[in-house]
Amino acid sequence: MAQRNIAVLGAGNVGGTLARLWAAQGHTVRFGVRDPQSDKVQEMVAALRGKGSAAQNHEAVASADIVALCVPWPNAEDAIRASGNMAGKILIDCTNPLSSDLKGLTIGLATSAAEQVARWARGAQVVKAFNTIGAGNFGNAEFGGLRADGFYCGDDRDAKKVVRELIEDVGLEPVDVGPLSNARWLEPLAMLWIDLAFNQKQGTNHAFKLLRR
Amino acid sequence: MAQRNIAVLGAGNVGGTLARLWAAQGHTVRFGVRDPQSDKVQEMVAALRGKGSAAQNHEAVASADIVALCVPWPNAEDAIRASGNMAGKILIDCTNPLSSDLKGLTIGLATSAAEQVARWARGAQVVKAFNTIGAGNFGNAEFGGLRADGFYCGDDRDAKKVVRELIEDVGLEPVDVGPLSNARWLEPLAMLWIDLAFNQKQGTNHAFKLLRR
Repeated sequence: MAQRNIAVLGAGNVGGTLARLWAAQGHTVRFGVRDPQSDKVQEMVAALRGKGSAAQNHEAVASADIVALCVPWPNAEDAIRASGNMAGKILIDCTNPLSSDLKGLTIGLATSAAEQVARWARGAQVVKAFNTIGAGNFGNAEFGGLRADGFYCGDDRDAKKVVRELIEDVGLEPVDVGPLSNARWLEPLAMLWIDLAFNQKQGTNHAFKLLRR
Repeated sequence: MAQRNIAVLGAGNVGGTLARLWAAQGHTVRFGVRDPQSDKVQEMVAALRGKGSAAQNHEAVASADIVALCVPWPNAEDAIRASGNMAGKILIDCTNPLSSDLKGLTIGLATSAAEQVARWARGAQVVKAFNTIGAGNFGNAEFGGLRADGFYCGDDRDAKKVVRELIEDVGLEPVDVGPLSNARWLEPLAMLWIDLAFNQKQGTNHAFKLLRR
């Protein structure tokens, strides 16, 4: 594979890890940070074993054809403004617009259909389920020896136990993903499934699995 | 497993499939629909082989302890209003609030951090990547013989080819999920990962895989 010149904006967990792995693959990596001489950044550079360096954003970006944006979202706009002209460069956006309590997206959903349903069906124990993959995979959930997951979420423990059994009844692997408000993440996951199936015309024989170890 | 009385609201693709599979598992299923005598509904009932029936919503729901909401989202509020009191019942919400063109959610995201980044970094070829799972899984992406996926999306074909190689370089299985606007679905997927890891304290050793066959 080709050897690339990559500017990694941000030397935190994501940026540091990508830089280390990319350098080990032979790419030239330059961190773009506010203080290239800080102990923390110099330690990150040392971990690249001669295959990397650090500079201010505009300098790191000027010599790169690829830029990986790995700063916390609240710093993203400043980091881009400090990077100079990126026209024609590949910019990999690794950010997520997380709220500071890690419970939501600041660009994103503050509600879901499931929560709306719960407001309409007052007193019912609402569980979100069976929404993330097409129904053609229900009762037909084997993928080369792997079982597709049936994600579900809700706020009532007993109701979730019952729904878990109903998910097993259609051959899916039940995966409890937490409170009903997490339907905010399951409904967009459904959109990913739908987009691949219909907008990108890849058919309906795909599903998701949460890997654990 | 326990035998359940289930009302399935809606006799379309999702409701019809769930009803058929649940009836085959010994559950009693009753469709809740506007016209229980219609040919289409009667055909669905026949497929349940004596283990099901159809009625108006309020009647189907009255005799059930579990209700599965399987109508299109624009009909959801009416279907719930027509169902009478559901207090104390388990309500499984299988809906997605899809826009009529299947390209978005009507309760949901109309933009993403990636699209904002593209507006800030004018002229750059922005690719969303490396955002859906924790960086601890980069370079360490094997899960019992399965390789965690590295989802990416963007609007520039050549830029995506380059980023694909960089994803392979960190040991992830690259999965192209389409245009940059699909970051609207990858950023919430990251929230699902984050919520399991931090809010639900399950640690960081999990990742996603798109199964295909």
